[in-house]
Amino acid sequence: MARVSQEHLDARRRQILDGAALCFARNGFHATSMQDVLKEVDLSAGAVYRYFSGKEELIGAIVTETLGSVREAFEEAARQSPPPPPDELVASVLGRTLAARESLVVDGRPAFPRLVVQVWTETLRNEELALLLGEGYGSVRAAWARIVEGYQEAGMMRADVAPDHVARTMIAAVLGFIAQQSLFGPAPVEVLQDGLRALTGMRGEGTGGSQLG
Amino acid sequence: MARVSQEHLDARRRQILDGAALCFARNGFHATSMQDVLKEVDLSAGAVYRYFSGKEELIGAIVTETLGSVREAFEEAARQSPPPPPDELVASVLGRTLAARESLVVDGRPAFPRLVVQVWTETLRNEELALLLGEGYGSVRAAWARIVEGYQEAGMMRADVAPDHVARTMIAAVLGFIAQQSLFGPAPVEVLQDGLRALTGMRGEGTGGSQLG
Repeated sequence: MARVSQEHLDARRRQILDGAALCFARNGFHATSMQDVLKEVDLSAGAVYRYFSGKEELIGAIVTETLGSVREAFEEAARQSPPPPPDELVASVLGRTLAARESLVVDGRPAFPRLVVQVWTETLRNEELALLLGEGYGSVRAAWARIVEGYQEAGMMRADVAPDHVARTMIAAVLGFIAQQSLFGPAPVEVLQDGLRALTGMRGEGTGGSQLG
Repeated sequence: MARVSQEHLDARRRQILDGAALCFARNGFHATSMQDVLKEVDLSAGAVYRYFSGKEELIGAIVTETLGSVREAFEEAARQSPPPPPDELVASVLGRTLAARESLVVDGRPAFPRLVVQVWTETLRNEELALLLGEGYGSVRAAWARIVEGYQEAGMMRADVAPDHVARTMIAAVLGFIAQQSLFGPAPVEVLQDGLRALTGMRGEGTGGSQLG
């Protein structure tokens, strides 16, 4: 057997994962067969099964890879003092996540938001996937809670709110923004960045805001 | 034929819609048959088809009803000057939306968040449903943009950010919070309320600061 470079192995693995992601985004995990994936990536069964034992391993690798890079980005932010403000941080991480997958297109639209919603649906009936997603979500949530503690320690955010509640809210905004894209078409991350910038700069009524108009 | 009171007709319609919502939440729209719905509500085909011609009409009625009540709640808020702050407003509307459906339970958990995610997935392949959801989303988004204008006019929010971007961000937070519940279990709306309260009260540092426009 000819020696195969690590570079070649990695590229082949990437090709299979991207093809599977396209299939899952298009038709959902349940309605996608390994035959569909083989056809999409234009490889033999032997070539694909060398890397992945089946659909479960494919979806697991996609979820692990995505949540892993998101977790790393937020853990890096948590180590800064103070962490970057929410609007900049979210725009940067979500922007990179979407950009890394922009070559994946279904029906002329970015496939990633659609893939995310399809994974959620499958999670509702697949305990193994639910466990994997729950673990990944838990680690992103923990990283976000440390970021919130950083805001609180720097005096940027009120300290009487549980960091985990802010973490859940920030993650909710990102997940919901991705869901909107899958349902109503692409929008630049600057939309979410703008919205978060306006919200984080709000002040209460009667605390010195000048009445306009 | 005996005269049937409007009250009886309304109750029967409600019973059918709730049964259909349970079926769709459990297995998704695609995998649910009208037979499943008939079995769930324990009524004859004749009794059900008197109200709804089929699955499409059922899902349409559920989506229209839900988005209609949400839109009304936000339109009412938009008429107040200034509108209630984001954390209170969201907690109130989402709290009422979830409470109105708390009797609907699948696998021991509230069915509504799960139903929402199932509807999203079906929307990816059902143009008619996509149109309906798009219209409803558009009207909620327009109401939210007017609320944001109210914040800006009252000096509560910087005026140099497009109201629609804040509207999309607020809706994203709610949709993402619902998605979290479907994936990782129920959480009280106070979690989101806390998170929004902490974010909207943030101070200083970089472009995320509290410079009002």
